[in-house]
Amino acid sequence: MYQAGYLKEFTESVFLAIGCNPADAELAARVLISADLRGVDSHGIARLAGYVRLYDNGRLNPNPDIKIVYETPSTAVVDGDKGLGLVVAPKAMEIAMEKAEKVGSGWVSVRNSNHFGIAGYHAMLALQKDMIGWTMTNAAPLVTPTFSLDKMLGTNPIAVAVPASEEPPFVADFASTAVAYGKFEILQRKGLPAPLGWAQDADGNVTTDSNTVKSGGGLLPLGSDREHGSHKGYGLGAIVDIFSGVLSGANFGPWVPPFATAGFMSAQEGVGLGTGHFLGAMRVDGFRPAADFKSDMDKWIRAFRGARAVEGQQVLIPGDPEREMEEIRSKEGIDLLQPVVLSLNELAKRFGIAFKPEL
Amino acid sequence: MYQAGYLKEFTESVFLAIGCNPADAELAARVLISADLRGVDSHGIARLAGYVRLYDNGRLNPNPDIKIVYETPSTAVVDGDKGLGLVVAPKAMEIAMEKAEKVGSGWVSVRNSNHFGIAGYHAMLALQKDMIGWTMTNAAPLVTPTFSLDKMLGTNPIAVAVPASEEPPFVADFASTAVAYGKFEILQRKGLPAPLGWAQDADGNVTTDSNTVKSGGGLLPLGSDREHGSHKGYGLGAIVDIFSGVLSGANFGPWVPPFATAGFMSAQEGVGLGTGHFLGAMRVDGFRPAADFKSDMDKWIRAFRGARAVEGQQVLIPGDPEREMEEIRSKEGIDLLQPVVLSLNELAKRFGIAFKPEL
Repeated sequence: MYQAGYLKEFTESVFLAIGCNPADAELAARVLISADLRGVDSHGIARLAGYVRLYDNGRLNPNPDIKIVYETPSTAVVDGDKGLGLVVAPKAMEIAMEKAEKVGSGWVSVRNSNHFGIAGYHAMLALQKDMIGWTMTNAAPLVTPTFSLDKMLGTNPIAVAVPASEEPPFVADFASTAVAYGKFEILQRKGLPAPLGWAQDADGNVTTDSNTVKSGGGLLPLGSDREHGSHKGYGLGAIVDIFSGVLSGANFGPWVPPFATAGFMSAQEGVGLGTGHFLGAMRVDGFRPAADFKSDMDKWIRAFRGARAVEGQQVLIPGDPEREMEEIRSKEGIDLLQPVVLSLNELAKRFGIAFKPEL
Repeated sequence: MYQAGYLKEFTESVFLAIGCNPADAELAARVLISADLRGVDSHGIARLAGYVRLYDNGRLNPNPDIKIVYETPSTAVVDGDKGLGLVVAPKAMEIAMEKAEKVGSGWVSVRNSNHFGIAGYHAMLALQKDMIGWTMTNAAPLVTPTFSLDKMLGTNPIAVAVPASEEPPFVADFASTAVAYGKFEILQRKGLPAPLGWAQDADGNVTTDSNTVKSGGGLLPLGSDREHGSHKGYGLGAIVDIFSGVLSGANFGPWVPPFATAGFMSAQEGVGLGTGHFLGAMRVDGFRPAADFKSDMDKWIRAFRGARAVEGQQVLIPGDPEREMEEIRSKEGIDLLQPVVLSLNELAKRFGIAFKPEL
């Protein structure tokens, strides 16, 4: 077990070592470790070595000039200058919130960024100001649209955070696919098959092969097949791609560069700049008095949590599992898989930083 | 076969007969028949008798005072004054577009409305001004969230319309469930079972009974079960409900009144006013020059339409099937089921209007 505070400090040192300024290194570390705290291990410190690989390959600018390239009172395009998405996204969210403060809502499409960690973190920034937060990002193509043999979309997540009064906030944060790719990686490590409906093979047939995406197959959109609404999951992923990529002038669809693998495409092969995000903030009191809205959200949350459930289960509010995990891991620490520990030890050695053994 | 123009004229006469003013009757008829033209028969003239039942039961105000009750430069709540959703929603969309014209985007949450027809119609209003249109609406509870035995959400659709340049626009318009309820009604009429993954029975078990929703069962969210992401479909339906119902002060969750059935609840049993919608418009040139954006949308559309497909199929762009149907039905006319023709004949008799026999 590792304490979150220690992992954050270590992460910060690595970002400092590649040349980030102290404020950005702290912010990036905070966003990254928030994923581990919330139980989204695939988007946490396990990816730290990947961000360093992006830097090694010239795709990451440690001291970006993040700036607004165009704006209206409620909209903007922000250029991330190849900065860490972990830093670009919260700064873009601040811009959305400043706009919301002035005119009720703010919507920022971001280009020239890269992987921004967990979508929910950025959406939740809005909560402290009684705003509803929206986040989306596109990502490298792993997903085959309905009837497609080609991978055309990323797992393209959406997060929406809504404040309540006495109840904890509503925080939906989900990929537009049947499952996140991280679930395949877990099955691959264990040598287990995947349930039908998660992926297709290179010929478009259903498959239980958890390695299928590596051999020409693709992840299926939410809905899994046409009969169960995969065209809706495809539509949702497409909306995320258009808002994040086309609206900002980033790459989109099959052109979105991968996170940090060996064979990523060079910039000139793309149709835009880097990865795209979309962030929005709406003041609750741009619609109703905030107290009325939040008290109705309490009523909404209590009604849903109080619904009769199938035996042995309970009806959850989006955000419940992650919040509960955060409470546990803040106290008890975070367990890391051995390959992750190895990757952190390598980073420690390379940058001359200590990585303490497990406590 | 009936010509769309004739059905629209007949619909207009019925709305005039219940006391709508001529402009509203024309608008409502246009929205309703656009559903028949686009092949969304469940939301077209088949529902005309239902709107009249709403009127008969005092839930529909034929001459509503639709007004903004609160606003900021980019947001507003509109009260529909119990008007036809078919009229309230386009008027709210006009307000969203006026705001977008001035400050880049406009977002309107609507209370005190009722069924607004097809979501896509209202979103597509934004296209003519090079804006992206968003529409959502809540609806009476038919859907059981993941693990729930109680029906807590409507089929809560989302529509997003995005302009392109030479290509036709991208128009996603889908319910947040595995299938629309209309598909069950078709199976019920034919006495056929439903595929697994569409609905659950009263005990939360999977079922093929196409009558299950009438006997304590519920529709399943997009994703069908937890293993295939039903919590994501539930999250999506919840977002639609919160934006449409809680943000506006309309009813939400299990309190949303049904369209027009015998046992609808009276107003005082609810938690807000009528049904809620959410409509938004974003100027494309609030982000990038419109020509650049629309030319990239052409590129997006061509890339997806050109993806390799499984044998005998092709990769569709959201909106393709509805647009093709509209072209066919505009020329060849619209076929109506016998029960629909009967309901129109009854309306004709009641209001002393002619309903011409099939051409």
